[in-house]
Amino acid sequence: MTVAPPSPAARAAAREHVDALAVPRGALGQLAELGVWLASVQDRVPPAPPKHVHAVVFAGDHGVAEHAVSAYPREITPMMVRAFVAGTAGVAVLARQHDVRLRVLDIAVDADLSDLGVDSYKVRRSSRPLHLEDALSADELEQSLAAGRTVAAEEIAAGAELLISGDMGIGNTTPAAALIAAALGLPAEEVAGRGTGVDDEGLAHKTEVIDTALRRVGHVDDPHALLAALGSADIAASAGFMAAAAESGVPVVVDGLIAVAAGLLADRLSPGASAWFVAGHRSTEPAQSLALDKLGLVPVLDLGLRLGEGSGAVAAVPLLRSAALLMNEVARLDEL
Amino acid sequence: MTVAPPSPAARAAAREHVDALAVPRGALGQLAELGVWLASVQDRVPPAPPKHVHAVVFAGDHGVAEHAVSAYPREITPMMVRAFVAGTAGVAVLARQHDVRLRVLDIAVDADLSDLGVDSYKVRRSSRPLHLEDALSADELEQSLAAGRTVAAEEIAAGAELLISGDMGIGNTTPAAALIAAALGLPAEEVAGRGTGVDDEGLAHKTEVIDTALRRVGHVDDPHALLAALGSADIAASAGFMAAAAESGVPVVVDGLIAVAAGLLADRLSPGASAWFVAGHRSTEPAQSLALDKLGLVPVLDLGLRLGEGSGAVAAVPLLRSAALLMNEVARLDEL
Repeated sequence: MTVAPPSPAARAAAREHVDALAVPRGALGQLAELGVWLASVQDRVPPAPPKHVHAVVFAGDHGVAEHAVSAYPREITPMMVRAFVAGTAGVAVLARQHDVRLRVLDIAVDADLSDLGVDSYKVRRSSRPLHLEDALSADELEQSLAAGRTVAAEEIAAGAELLISGDMGIGNTTPAAALIAAALGLPAEEVAGRGTGVDDEGLAHKTEVIDTALRRVGHVDDPHALLAALGSADIAASAGFMAAAAESGVPVVVDGLIAVAAGLLADRLSPGASAWFVAGHRSTEPAQSLALDKLGLVPVLDLGLRLGEGSGAVAAVPLLRSAALLMNEVARLDEL
Repeated sequence: MTVAPPSPAARAAAREHVDALAVPRGALGQLAELGVWLASVQDRVPPAPPKHVHAVVFAGDHGVAEHAVSAYPREITPMMVRAFVAGTAGVAVLARQHDVRLRVLDIAVDADLSDLGVDSYKVRRSSRPLHLEDALSADELEQSLAAGRTVAAEEIAAGAELLISGDMGIGNTTPAAALIAAALGLPAEEVAGRGTGVDDEGLAHKTEVIDTALRRVGHVDDPHALLAALGSADIAASAGFMAAAAESGVPVVVDGLIAVAAGLLADRLSPGASAWFVAGHRSTEPAQSLALDKLGLVPVLDLGLRLGEGSGAVAAVPLLRSAALLMNEVARLDEL
């Protein structure tokens, strides 16, 4: 479905509100832009500082990880899911710091994590190797999208005012880069990055794998077909999550490469969705910047992060809150 | 005096600590660099998240502001000091958000602010117009430096683990840019920026004023002579504050143009001081980036801010805390 845009009236009123503050015109830079965006998505001037922020990490393995595209073995994926639950993963630390509620879901981990109670939305064990065959069947894709949509609805029902989707899964930068390449019509060389840290040889091989996948699939416009062919269950769940958030009028802080790939597809599934997105950070992956540009999103942070997990988006939350607080608490020039 | 460097042993141990965390090698980007720096200045691995952060805003007027270098009249300076005290200035809002203690001091405001109790360190009413004569006498300079040093000692005695200096004063980007030009041997055209927002004609005039000041003073190496000739009482106080912090082994988050100019001079007054500094943000002023490069500082934030007041440094505080928290709370790879 096409998504209604955030309130243009609130956007205009927020701009006037900012211009009347007791700061030099334009001095708040991007914090003013964030404040205006928050006002438009909340339809409220000044905007409320987002208090209830919920982050969901979608975890899944990737068949392509068996084909030497990552610096780490896939056994890391279930270990990291346990670290999320234990609160010792990077994003869990940042979420505690900023009072962000964190949830992890096993969408397609190639392991039995039923003891953790995180597998109610599990689609399958690992998505298929995208350079050899479609990552998901049409049914599996719909199940993944529906999982993300349902989770978004659950978080919104639980009071989320701002949503974040993270991703965990060894190999995940390969499908994400392939999706961005296919969606933007770019060659593999422009989208392939080092992910968790492959060396030059590894990068060349990863580029070749992405190229093989792109050639296997050919030109495809339909976002469902793209996600099934080149994506994964976790990325599709994230896309469904982001599309549903935008359709419900709940804003999303977009994380790094995986989240941006999901966001790009969410904006194709639900045209206009990206107006409800803000970019948390610029990662070191080249495809992430390319997709951000395409979506017209300017990242809040640029710290050379490439941790994934939603960490860059969660790290940006205090700045979103700053943007709203400044609009609420700075004096107006005529009050000085 | 020459400043002892932060602990090299703690730096090395912190690097090893980061490399053992359950994140891909290098994935924390600049957050890892900040964590390692915090460990070195605290001589503690992992570093403690900085809890007691104190920011001091040094306020002062500038004779040069009578000569059309700013988009705002100098009457704004005392009004803004009142807004700091009332808690309605930008930096006051951010300081509340991040539990940063904020203090404002009238060093050279051209008004009577004695009712606010912020003038115990007042040096004079307004520094002199630097393009026509030295901004401060030698005595006034020493008084300003001593004020900053005393204030740093007071804040450290009160428990500050991390210090920030901000500046308020219409016209302050002119002396700050002139100081950076003189210290780095750059022409006026390279350092002059739009400050609070002068137009093209205003920028051309401001450049001419800075050029006149630089030609008036000629080549000067001594930091005392530079601060007296081209600086101001508030900038000198800030330089004394930053030098004293470094000498005491207390780290400083450097703000925008004015703070970086003061930091550059502090590093000349007390060679080695800048190893105790971290850059909070990149402002839109060209001279700020030039001086950061010279000091080898990479800013945490790059949000197009040009509010001054210490606001960019205070906005960066949650990321410094994130850096320390990640080092404390993320699992080690061998614990997964």
